[in-house]
Parts: sequence; C-alpha cells; structure tokens
Amino acid sequence: MTETKMFALVLYPGLTPLDLVGPLQVLSALAAMKPEYEVAVVAEHTGPMQTDTPVRLAASHRFEDVPEPFALLVPGGQLPTIRAMTDETLLGYLRSAADGAQIVGSVCTGSLLLGAAGLLDGRKATTHWTFLEVLAGFGATPQTRRWVEDGRVVTAAGVSAGIDLALHLVDRFAGAEVARTVQFVIEYDPQPPLGALNWDQAPRAEWAPLRDYALREGLAGHPDLYERLAGR
Amino acid sequence: MTETKMFALVLYPGLTPLDLVGPLQVLSALAAMKPEYEVAVVAEHTGPMQTDTPVRLAASHRFEDVPEPFALLVPGGQLPTIRAMTDETLLGYLRSAADGAQIVGSVCTGSLLLGAAGLLDGRKATTHWTFLEVLAGFGATPQTRRWVEDGRVVTAAGVSAGIDLALHLVDRFAGAEVARTVQFVIEYDPQPPLGALNWDQAPRAEWAPLRDYALREGLAGHPDLYERLAGR
Repeated sequence: MTETKMFALVLYPGLTPLDLVGPLQVLSALAAMKPEYEVAVVAEHTGPMQTDTPVRLAASHRFEDVPEPFALLVPGGQLPTIRAMTDETLLGYLRSAADGAQIVGSVCTGSLLLGAAGLLDGRKATTHWTFLEVLAGFGATPQTRRWVEDGRVVTAAGVSAGIDLALHLVDRFAGAEVARTVQFVIEYDPQPPLGALNWDQAPRAEWAPLRDYALREGLAGHPDLYERLAGR
Repeated sequence: MTETKMFALVLYPGLTPLDLVGPLQVLSALAAMKPEYEVAVVAEHTGPMQTDTPVRLAASHRFEDVPEPFALLVPGGQLPTIRAMTDETLLGYLRSAADGAQIVGSVCTGSLLLGAAGLLDGRKATTHWTFLEVLAGFGATPQTRRWVEDGRVVTAAGVSAGIDLALHLVDRFAGAEVARTVQFVIEYDPQPPLGALNWDQAPRAEWAPLRDYALREGLAGHPDLYERLAGR
C-alpha cells in the first residue's frame, strides 16, 4: 500500500477564508481525481472559528492528527494573522509539520506566519502587496510576483492568488492534464469585470497606515519582533 | 437612520465552499468600506455544516433572522445541491426572501435551487457548464456567459465565477472606484498557470454521466422533477 500524500491547510481564528478555501477547492478536486492525494484542514481544535467575514470555519483535523503532512499551506489575514505570529502552539505546529514536508507554502500574509516560524530565512517569497516589504525582516527576499517557488517554499500573493498557486501545485505534482481538468471543475476562467489590476493605481498610501496599525496592535507586547518588522 | 442593505448568502449542507466564500470575501470588503451594506451567511441553523471539501462552514444567522434581505445569493455544489432542490425549508426561504429582494442571485448550480424555487421562469440564466441545459427545465433560457444579469436575477457560471459576479455587484451598487479597491484588497489579478480555459477541450463527454448520476440519485423519489430536468 502506498502512503497517501497529505496537503494540510492550516486554520486559525480570524483568517481570511478565501485564502484557505480557494486552494482547498482546487486540492480537493485533485484528491477526488487522484486518490494518492488527501486534503485536511488542520487547527488547534475542530470547533468553528471566526474569520474576517461572517462565516465561521471548522477544521477536519487537529494539529496532532496530521503531524507529518506532505505539504503544508498557511493562509493569511489581517490583524488576527499578525496576532497569530506570536501564537506558540501554531508556530510549533508549523515548525514540526514543515520539518519533513516537501512543500511549505502560504497564501497572502500566511507568509508572515512562515516567517515568524523561521521558515523563510534566505528564501525568495511573496505576500499580500501591502505587506511585501515586511518579509525582509524574516531574512526573505521579497518578490513582486503572483506566486514564488523557491525550492520547497512556495508563497502566493494576496488572497485570490492562492487559487493560482494551488493550480500550479496540481500541475507540478499531477501534471498539466489533471490541472486543466481541475480548472474546468472550478470553471476558473476569470473575467474581472473591471479588467486586470493596474498597479499604478494601487492605493499604497491609503493602506500603509492600516498595515502599520496591524503590526503595532498585533505585536503589542512583542517589541523585538515589532522592531524587526516595522523598524525598517 | 438609513436601514442597511443586507446581502444574504445561503448555506446548506454539502455545498461547494468556494461558491460561497468567493462572493462573501468580496461583499465583506464592500461592507467594511461602506457601512450601509451588511453581509450575513444564512442557514437553517448556525452549527457547522459539511461541504464538498474537508472544511465545514457555520452560518452567522438562521433563515428567520434575515427574512427580508436586500440581496439573496445562493451557492451551488454537486449531488447535495441536487438533493437540496427538494428541501422545502430551503426552498421556502428562497421564495420568501426573494419576494422583496432587489437582487436574486446564484453561483454555479445554485441556479438550480433558484429554478426549483420557481425564480428562474422566463429569465436568462447561467450555471456550471456541466448543468447548463438543465436550466431550460425551469423555463429559463440558458446562456453561455461568465455571469448573466436579467433584471434582478443575476446568475454566475461555475464556482470561481462568483468572484466576478460579486465584483460586478459592488460596481453596480457602490461604483467602479469601490469595486477596484475591493479588487486590490483581494489582489484579484488572476494568472491561471495554464492560461485561460480552452472550451474546445472541455471534458463534456466525461462529465455528462456524472451530471446524469447526480440528477438521478439526487432526485430519487421525485420522478416528476427528474423527468422535467433530465428528460430533455
């Protein structure tokens, strides 16, 4: 019997649910087509957790149920994700689960959690555009890309970029034909009604204070980490 | 005091979570920017419900808490959605909530639930490409489009199309500037790794038996409805 390869998507309170559910839908379609892959949503407990929207999410497994995933994928969020950067239970799981994982990945500001767990040192990485510079505080080299693959470390840009990253992982592990079928299953043929983003119009000045507030408030009580990330 | 305009996203067991969470993330960003809008996830109860992936979702409100939403949005799914087409509690809510709603919408096969509730008669509509022809059984005119707007009835194509539809609704109600900001918030700048879908490659022959199975199995015990939808 071949052991299945488990994708573990990490859930924690207050995250941005699309960061998790986008890749989850893609990887679940992979698992439905290719039984050698499995998907779990792992958290400290399996009860419902708040998100940054009105929906609550409940995990399928506790951290201790999935100690050695094939792939680890960490979604992001806003202030609650910054707070989670000092959650030692969560960080402990990220470190131990990453230990033997062939993929250590993130969506959006989930990369800050990888960074806080010491998993981005010396890696090229990306995150939500509003937090991109912060990655350098973890010894990472920030990249302006939809997703970045640096060996086993794969990081996606903000929120919806997790869908693209997950399709890339399906392509990488199961091949283009399976990835294309998954793309048909989720009918991923995007037509943003206002077209692609024009990055010259990005509201950087408006969002910088929100990022600074999240770092200051989320890391209150952790001045060393705050200084490392915000002091640059 | 102006009354807030409530977007009610409907949750039921077994649905495809990305159908719900995509629009939810977009509309929650709208509500964060424009306090005259609110978002609720409504269901028969607020306990966690299974989805077609390992995550479970829990609603923020029960049906009776949101009797008269401004906008109603119904996500889709696979076999459980076909089963839900004969869930009288769900259909009763869709009918009564739609009564005074300014938007009656769906994502993916959520349109079949609108159809089962009698809300698509005489309307142009769309759904997941595998179920498109079935819409005619409800008196609707199927359209091959990313989303279709026919008066207050707005229907999106499969799964990920709900993101595009929701951005369109933000544009329609709050204007292009807000919609563009929301698009930056969720960094919706899609780059499908294998490119856009080539519809000539759609695995129609492979998926037709799965659709037929879902209709036959999901409507067992409801031969009239089955005949109306599958008999064509």
